[in-house]
Amino acid sequence: MPTSSNLKTREKSLRRDLLQAQFDLAQREQSVVVVIGGLPGAGKSELVHRLNEWLDPRFLATCALWMHSDEEEDRPYFWRFWRHMPPHGRITLFLDSWYTRTLYENAADKLDPLALQTRLAQINAFERMLYDDGTLVVKLWLEVDRMTAQQRLAEDALRLAHLPASAERWSQDYEAATNAANAIVAGTDAAQAAWQRIPAQDADKRDIIAGETLLTLLTTQTPPVRAAVNHNSWFAGSEELQNNVLADVPLDAQLSKSDYATLLEAEQHKLQALAWRAHDERRSLIAVFEGWDAAGKGSAIRRVTAPMDPRLYRVVQSAAPSDEEQAHHYLWRYWRNLERSGRATLFDRSWYGRVLVERVEQFAAPQAWQRAYDEINQFEQQLQDHGCIVVKFWLHISPAEQLRRFQDRQNTPHKQHKITDDDWRNRARWADYESAVLDMVELTSTAAAPWTLVAGNDKRYARVQILQTLCAALEQGLSTQ
Amino acid sequence: MPTSSNLKTREKSLRRDLLQAQFDLAQREQSVVVVIGGLPGAGKSELVHRLNEWLDPRFLATCALWMHSDEEEDRPYFWRFWRHMPPHGRITLFLDSWYTRTLYENAADKLDPLALQTRLAQINAFERMLYDDGTLVVKLWLEVDRMTAQQRLAEDALRLAHLPASAERWSQDYEAATNAANAIVAGTDAAQAAWQRIPAQDADKRDIIAGETLLTLLTTQTPPVRAAVNHNSWFAGSEELQNNVLADVPLDAQLSKSDYATLLEAEQHKLQALAWRAHDERRSLIAVFEGWDAAGKGSAIRRVTAPMDPRLYRVVQSAAPSDEEQAHHYLWRYWRNLERSGRATLFDRSWYGRVLVERVEQFAAPQAWQRAYDEINQFEQQLQDHGCIVVKFWLHISPAEQLRRFQDRQNTPHKQHKITDDDWRNRARWADYESAVLDMVELTSTAAAPWTLVAGNDKRYARVQILQTLCAALEQGLSTQ
Repeated sequence: MPTSSNLKTREKSLRRDLLQAQFDLAQREQSVVVVIGGLPGAGKSELVHRLNEWLDPRFLATCALWMHSDEEEDRPYFWRFWRHMPPHGRITLFLDSWYTRTLYENAADKLDPLALQTRLAQINAFERMLYDDGTLVVKLWLEVDRMTAQQRLAEDALRLAHLPASAERWSQDYEAATNAANAIVAGTDAAQAAWQRIPAQDADKRDIIAGETLLTLLTTQTPPVRAAVNHNSWFAGSEELQNNVLADVPLDAQLSKSDYATLLEAEQHKLQALAWRAHDERRSLIAVFEGWDAAGKGSAIRRVTAPMDPRLYRVVQSAAPSDEEQAHHYLWRYWRNLERSGRATLFDRSWYGRVLVERVEQFAAPQAWQRAYDEINQFEQQLQDHGCIVVKFWLHISPAEQLRRFQDRQNTPHKQHKITDDDWRNRARWADYESAVLDMVELTSTAAAPWTLVAGNDKRYARVQILQTLCAALEQGLSTQ
Repeated sequence: MPTSSNLKTREKSLRRDLLQAQFDLAQREQSVVVVIGGLPGAGKSELVHRLNEWLDPRFLATCALWMHSDEEEDRPYFWRFWRHMPPHGRITLFLDSWYTRTLYENAADKLDPLALQTRLAQINAFERMLYDDGTLVVKLWLEVDRMTAQQRLAEDALRLAHLPASAERWSQDYEAATNAANAIVAGTDAAQAAWQRIPAQDADKRDIIAGETLLTLLTTQTPPVRAAVNHNSWFAGSEELQNNVLADVPLDAQLSKSDYATLLEAEQHKLQALAWRAHDERRSLIAVFEGWDAAGKGSAIRRVTAPMDPRLYRVVQSAAPSDEEQAHHYLWRYWRNLERSGRATLFDRSWYGRVLVERVEQFAAPQAWQRAYDEINQFEQQLQDHGCIVVKFWLHISPAEQLRRFQDRQNTPHKQHKITDDDWRNRARWADYESAVLDMVELTSTAAAPWTLVAGNDKRYARVQILQTLCAALEQGLSTQ
């Protein structure tokens, strides 16, 4: 057993080494997520304090998600954690984390085995995704015996008075609660995000051991290098296997001016009422618009928003990411732009950039875009689980039609800004993009969020097809759940 | 009266010119705030729609603050608008704005003359501040007669069903409500943010006239160039007038190790309870820590946070601003970091950088830092009006003590990262900084948020002084309101 002066010596060198490790992290732009777990009374807050004392506050944040807000409840559960993800080079301590809810609910016997398994799978997928993106995931589980936990809680009357009601279970049936917690720890002890069990009977030893464990992981664990491009392992996609669904898009389809006027008005009228209904039922529409350059995404979106009250929607443009966005996972900028329940978010280009332009232009490493299909499916699953209605459009046009539109843009003064060298470069790689589109459609068309391939050569036809699809999806979505 | 084909022609050239004006804005990094005002039924939403159709969505956002969230209610009123301020080069249309609340409340006779005057003064100061920072403030007031307004409302049953209850006043006593609105328009018709009255009887004409008015302002109005430095007009501060309060700080004051231990523990114990009490009463502490390099801000902050539950506070470091922060008013990054009611936000350096380092190093133009004193006082007034308890510390040390600490840092391996060339450069300009500090203390020591000058040569004394000041301010603040 270490003596108190022994601990003092260890603390001194630990603090120095932790600071050095933080500078190294900042240098190599490594982000770190630290989850502090344990039963009530294990000393989680005290450890967070100590780490805040020891670490350099310039590279550190603490997330204590104690008061939930309606803005959080209005988005999928993980939104509240995405908000607090550390940018590159920083550490965030999660005093309350994606484990908190499941720990309490499982201890209170509120989760059946299937629900628990689903939760654990979500957590594992989330941590896997962080790890794959180069974030180190450190999870500390503080272990105390019942007596110590209860004594420690009793000593802090103020804290005790502010514990959630659900914590009572631990005083009623400590063994059952402990078993419930252990099941969660065991079920989330993955190689890339292993639980570190910290003996927490003695407060000083607990902090030293936790700090030393953190230090070891900071200095020895290296998640995969983020987005490093390995041109040798370049993988051209699964062309051979592809069923060319794009070839089946009826690009000849047309609408006459008068049919268009009639249909457009009818669908817009429907959409206006559906948008209000979605608001009243607090359901969100998430609409993704992807397509070839000059396919007409912008003008189609304007036909969609025209009948909607401006209070009920927002259009999100995927422009160049800001430096804050670049310092996070590629999905972070889309999570941060999700609207609250009852409102529509229309994405003019989206997270699918990862498997389209970033794949084709080799901005993302093959392993990065290849795993993105799963990450995207999981993201959209979370949207649906929250009650969002997810609709995805690929606006398809023929190469000849694109050329016609490019030339029209070049020849029309007020459209010239819409055509750039990039557009011509992308056009030259039509086959590569087509291959990426086919993979995307195949790998991310889920039952609940299928892709709609829009016949875009005739803009009138395309707009009506989009409005009809949106109205049908809203009608169907609003009548369920 | 324009014919319909006349309007079509005007619309065509208007759209082209608006797009061009937007590119020019983006080029010169000019931000624009457009407030859409008018009584219910005037056609505000319709105009917002039309502008969304006409303008390039890449440089445009619409703010419809219709559903208020608890996160918004937990901060000063203007926080909800700061969230939506356009970055440089962008336009934000405010369908609901800082006028909405006052319009409704004044129409419902809920504001006495003094309260109304205060509101209008706040609005004028806010818009003045935006304008001074280089943001163009365009305010369109849509004018319709009673019949047209009511008819238009009646035509849109869905909208009508979603109007706030307070809108009923307009149907009960339209003339009184109109007079109440006119008083607000008249009281906020400032030169740098003039109201443009738009005849809105006819929907098509309304949109064309509003668009043309916007275009004219975008192309002819130029707010002061943002933060341009004019070295010729450099103003050295008000040295002659200064009462050198820094000279009166008792830098010799000391505490023995044992007195320190006793006092520290007593004050930390008090602070622990006060932090919980502030949480329970939903009052926020805003603590600002400024001081000389090596004055001990970081270690003092750690003594403050040590007794507080980690769920109850956040420390905000003023590191280099991100590009998102740089594209906004300098106060934006502090507004975005304010914690919710019941939690403490501790700023390790703060908005006072504007009148300290940015003044001395000439990063801000003289007119920019000179007007900042007023802007800061108004900001802190808003915090206090919301119920925040604002405490500000200047950690003072002598030049000799600073030298001693710099040398200590250079000679101690694990402290070397804390001393940079900047520190030595700043030290060489001690007199300039002192002058800036004296102006700051003189011009921003308000009754409700006075500066506390901390005697920092003895770290023990300084920490106890800070804790005592914080506890006293919390005790006094929590017993009022």
